[in-house]
Amino acid sequence: MTKKPQFDRIAIIGAGLIGSSVARAIVRAGAAGTLAVSDRDQDVLQEAREIGFADEFTADAAEAAKDADLVVIAVPVGAMAAVGDVIAPALKEGAIVTDVGSVKEAVFKALDPILPKHVHLIPGHPVAGTEQSGPQAGFASLFDGRWCIITPPEGVNKGALNKLTKLWEAMGSTVEIMTAPHHDLVLAITSHVPHLIAYNIVGTASDLEEVTRSEVIKYSAGGFRDFTRIAASDPTMWRDVFLSNKDAVLEMLGRFSEDLTALQRAIRWGDGDALFDLFTRTRDIRRRIIDAGQDEEAADFGRHHED
Amino acid sequence: MTKKPQFDRIAIIGAGLIGSSVARAIVRAGAAGTLAVSDRDQDVLQEAREIGFADEFTADAAEAAKDADLVVIAVPVGAMAAVGDVIAPALKEGAIVTDVGSVKEAVFKALDPILPKHVHLIPGHPVAGTEQSGPQAGFASLFDGRWCIITPPEGVNKGALNKLTKLWEAMGSTVEIMTAPHHDLVLAITSHVPHLIAYNIVGTASDLEEVTRSEVIKYSAGGFRDFTRIAASDPTMWRDVFLSNKDAVLEMLGRFSEDLTALQRAIRWGDGDALFDLFTRTRDIRRRIIDAGQDEEAADFGRHHED
Repeated sequence: MTKKPQFDRIAIIGAGLIGSSVARAIVRAGAAGTLAVSDRDQDVLQEAREIGFADEFTADAAEAAKDADLVVIAVPVGAMAAVGDVIAPALKEGAIVTDVGSVKEAVFKALDPILPKHVHLIPGHPVAGTEQSGPQAGFASLFDGRWCIITPPEGVNKGALNKLTKLWEAMGSTVEIMTAPHHDLVLAITSHVPHLIAYNIVGTASDLEEVTRSEVIKYSAGGFRDFTRIAASDPTMWRDVFLSNKDAVLEMLGRFSEDLTALQRAIRWGDGDALFDLFTRTRDIRRRIIDAGQDEEAADFGRHHED
Repeated sequence: MTKKPQFDRIAIIGAGLIGSSVARAIVRAGAAGTLAVSDRDQDVLQEAREIGFADEFTADAAEAAKDADLVVIAVPVGAMAAVGDVIAPALKEGAIVTDVGSVKEAVFKALDPILPKHVHLIPGHPVAGTEQSGPQAGFASLFDGRWCIITPPEGVNKGALNKLTKLWEAMGSTVEIMTAPHHDLVLAITSHVPHLIAYNIVGTASDLEEVTRSEVIKYSAGGFRDFTRIAASDPTMWRDVFLSNKDAVLEMLGRFSEDLTALQRAIRWGDGDALFDLFTRTRDIRRRIIDAGQDEEAADFGRHHED
């Protein structure tokens, strides 16, 4: 039985970890009659072509976007406007334009004035990823069981929103709708600030003189190595996230620093009860994340120590 | 062929994650003629007895330590002195006493005045563990390919140091010798401060009002969940670590906070180059940790998304 694909033509601009995973998930779902992938980096494009997760590969984003019913922009947040400029003249009437960026208000503000009024701009953010980059790192199941947050603007076309929701569901995600500013606040604490402090501690460690870098590497199993994994994420993407979600990140960072100062004071004054209370409270959050299916219980992610 | 065990009798005081893993690793290595395990918590002791990773189980640490050639104290750092008081009268001449605590100078200072002069006190720290606790969580291969740091006091008995080194090697570890203060500084940055900031951000997130706790849990896949894993570690153990490695932790925390303030300033003033430079530098450390065999390359620790 051949089901009619949900979209006649889908274009994905950007063939990195997320773009290439979206492409694979769309193929797996059979959601596109024709799938076109574009990347302005010739090496990345060549790699994508060799893997072969689309029908067309082109360095010209406008060519990919031409006649598309859906365009998914999967580039760093700071590059969205440049992509918008290129594809705007090629977009057909009624096309849906979405993205996968980790910041939503800035993306909407960057794209909305550029795109023609006859398209439906509906930003989105699949909350999924790994620390790796590039088309080789993508895979079709990246979004399975993960949330995709869609942040429709006021007065969104309901039919278009519905089609986009159905697509993410077909790619394995559960869709949640919220406003862009609320998204940016939630992600500041669940993703942006955690990444920033991971980058920060890895930087602090690499600057030490009393402790050598080889010691830091040798004894990283004590906890540090988990931070290095996060701090290995794509630098361009994360630079853009911090610059374009400045207000929410600075707000959450302010709270984090206040709390850390209080902990520092508890250590200095030997207030063991304050430490113990916090350390007990945080276990409960972990429990609930596992219960919610957002992580696995296996100790240490099952790093090779099965007996 | 039956090899003579390295020690006639080994006693392990404390049957939690680390104590029970030491017991299993000793059994696997065939390193003890008789292995005695003690825990003052009757439930833990009963659990240990049911799993059966030793020859003798007792709530009385002195009974376990009596006639032992080696005593391994595997209790939280703050409880070392209490254990020392109990076992001191039972220790036989020439016995080796070691521990597995995450802080080394404070442990030596706590135990050295209590233990009889006729035993060899040689503190140690296997740099291995998971976020889980209790005898059920232990396993024999926990120390395989991991470092064990031994911090012998000045004038240590070479024969005793050699026997302890051989035992950790038989349990799968690679042994490194350093002074206790240097150990405490290295571990402050590779383990203690990472744990503290993980506990801290999970605490900050759970206090938010604009973002609900269920949102924090739902969208934790963006990075936060890795911090919750670390922040699920044993509260008593970690309280003791921070209180007993106060100076090194406060020193490293001061550096971390300075660096974080600089990053905060870069975000506020839109200094993308400073962010990009740091984020690029940190990738290199990750690479070197993988090259050194201290972590796996598999994206996201191979969390269930193989295609």
